[in-house]
Amino acid sequence: ANTHKIAVIAGDGIGTEVVPEGLRALEAAARRFDIRLEFEHFEFGSCDYYLEHGKMLPDDWFETLSGFDAIFYGAVGWPDKVPDHISLWGSLLQFRRHFDQYINLRPCRLMPGIKSPLADREPGDIDFYVVRENTEGEYSSIGGKIFEGTDRETVMQETVMTRTGVDRVLKYAFELAQSRPRRKLTSATKSNGISITMPYWDERVKATAGKYPNVSVDQFHIDILTANFVLHPDWFDVVVASNLFGDILSDLGPACTGTIGVAPSANINPEGKFPSLFEPVHGSAPDIAGKGIANPIGQIWCGAMMLEHLGYKEAGDAMVSAIEQVLASDDKSALTPDLKGKGTTRSLGEKIAAAI
Amino acid sequence: ANTHKIAVIAGDGIGTEVVPEGLRALEAAARRFDIRLEFEHFEFGSCDYYLEHGKMLPDDWFETLSGFDAIFYGAVGWPDKVPDHISLWGSLLQFRRHFDQYINLRPCRLMPGIKSPLADREPGDIDFYVVRENTEGEYSSIGGKIFEGTDRETVMQETVMTRTGVDRVLKYAFELAQSRPRRKLTSATKSNGISITMPYWDERVKATAGKYPNVSVDQFHIDILTANFVLHPDWFDVVVASNLFGDILSDLGPACTGTIGVAPSANINPEGKFPSLFEPVHGSAPDIAGKGIANPIGQIWCGAMMLEHLGYKEAGDAMVSAIEQVLASDDKSALTPDLKGKGTTRSLGEKIAAAI
Ligand SMILES: CC(C)[C@H](C(=O)O)[C@@H](O)C(=O)O
Ligand SMILES: CC(C)[C@H](C(=O)O)[C@@H](O)C(=O)O
Repeated sequence: ANTHKIAVIAGDGIGTEVVPEGLRALEAAARRFDIRLEFEHFEFGSCDYYLEHGKMLPDDWFETLSGFDAIFYGAVGWPDKVPDHISLWGSLLQFRRHFDQYINLRPCRLMPGIKSPLADREPGDIDFYVVRENTEGEYSSIGGKIFEGTDRETVMQETVMTRTGVDRVLKYAFELAQSRPRRKLTSATKSNGISITMPYWDERVKATAGKYPNVSVDQFHIDILTANFVLHPDWFDVVVASNLFGDILSDLGPACTGTIGVAPSANINPEGKFPSLFEPVHGSAPDIAGKGIANPIGQIWCGAMMLEHLGYKEAGDAMVSAIEQVLASDDKSALTPDLKGKGTTRSLGEKIAAAI
Repeated sequence: ANTHKIAVIAGDGIGTEVVPEGLRALEAAARRFDIRLEFEHFEFGSCDYYLEHGKMLPDDWFETLSGFDAIFYGAVGWPDKVPDHISLWGSLLQFRRHFDQYINLRPCRLMPGIKSPLADREPGDIDFYVVRENTEGEYSSIGGKIFEGTDRETVMQETVMTRTGVDRVLKYAFELAQSRPRRKLTSATKSNGISITMPYWDERVKATAGKYPNVSVDQFHIDILTANFVLHPDWFDVVVASNLFGDILSDLGPACTGTIGVAPSANINPEGKFPSLFEPVHGSAPDIAGKGIANPIGQIWCGAMMLEHLGYKEAGDAMVSAIEQVLASDDKSALTPDLKGKGTTRSLGEKIAAAI
């Protein structure tokens, strides 16, 4: 079997605490499924690196990381050290653009043992993916100011959608929907208000839907769609959205399942031309950093998504099952405090690795 | 006392059913508080008008409606008759722009007797306002397409924020916060991703906050803010947001309180230079239109907001109390089916009018 080279960037705050547990679980899965993984650790992509070097990444980051099959990221950002727009645009958003990670994929699943903020929902009720466009749309850097500093001050920023950019995220989402039992795709739009780009999005959804006759398609405007995440989360299977709408929905979705602290996200270049990046949804959490109590499940779940991306679906599924098994177990002693346990990052990580 | 002239536009679908109950409640409040209201009804601003005249509004709508103190609107839109972008941009969005209704105000309140989709929340736990910028921002019509119909097709749309536009909505929101016991304002941003307009929004929030030292201010990026609406709705008092973010939050907020079917919205020109417009959040609801079972509470609550806007806060509060009293009562017989009652639009409207 091939050896897969994984670049490990622990980053900031609890990133440095949960990454070792993610690696422990990955090593367990690699042993069980006979997968060869080779890890190399990097200091860059963190605020401490920035404070020392005046930049988030070394000049040759692109060449350095291009040789890897995937990037396993902890968390980036520590606003008291470096403003977010510097740390994030200097790292994560560079990777997304330069490695053409045009898919941001996030599962929203009600897990056993995790309390949902929604009333009367059981594990099994909520289980969908948000597929977010990850390179263009509302996150453009085109725009500027006129009449600066006066009462007439006016600021403009472009949203940019391309046929290439929209069609490829739709293709990915339709194929994902097709591979799932319900075969259902929901498109997030706002064509009744955002009257130029969003009707174009709708038009491409319609054109693409023609190629996937066995996928059932619906669409909601983003306002009522956020409402429906709360009111009818069971309606959804695969939700596809622009960069901004996907950003919103992929925080709201995990919030509705109570998993914002444990959800993973994958920044994917589906063609494998560039490395994809796997990172938990939770940030660096300065408030609990250094205490050894951060929940490592998001990082471990990221490992599962990474193995699936590398072609080891069975191994990825086994890691997710191990997480679910530990969460569902009556013995809460190893769980971290956020799960009402008395354990540590390490005790929970070891328990999941053992279950794998 | 002055006579206030109110233009009444029932519009489409259940708009025509709930408006009479809104008027019934307004008349009851007018009698009790000795307010003079004069209603005039208009057919335009509905899809049926469009089908007959080829436009949503007559050419002289601006002059006609300018003479009124307020517009009491039912609902507009009936996609099977007229596409939404025609019916809405041809009516509601015209009013917002031409009557400079730059504030869109929506209360999010957990009401007695209404089931919240959130677990473990009681009336009193959730009670905040969303203040939405209502004329500019992401809802601009500037933009277009290049390389149309080819693989290189690219579509762009501008977001436009002006100092005038941003500062006046912030002023309104800060003053509203100042008038409430908690004196708390939350700003919706996304300056870590939308890197030109949103940092400008933040900058104006900071500049305005300096003038209201007794209001405590925080801000969240829109992604985590939507999550916090679900996880911590009790955190919020006044939430101020751009046109798009406000649109999203003011559907999500009522969804979290279970009131999406009964919440009101006010499109306000605070200076009173032009008429303000009051309309329930629910649309025309083609699926239940004509059955006489639509819930009239949204329309009645709109009447309360209208009276408050016209300077009759006590009368507005009395209308809201009457709604709460009827909802909290053990006798459910007059309630509409969505509230698990066996009543009709009319029986519920009459009961609330009687309570006023
Ligand atoms: C219908 C649509 C254009 C409108 C908006 O987005 O403003 C609606 O959602 C609203 O909130 O009034
Ligand atoms: C930090 C921020 C720029 C980023 C985004 O908006 O893409 C984050 O919210 C995410 O979802 O990864």
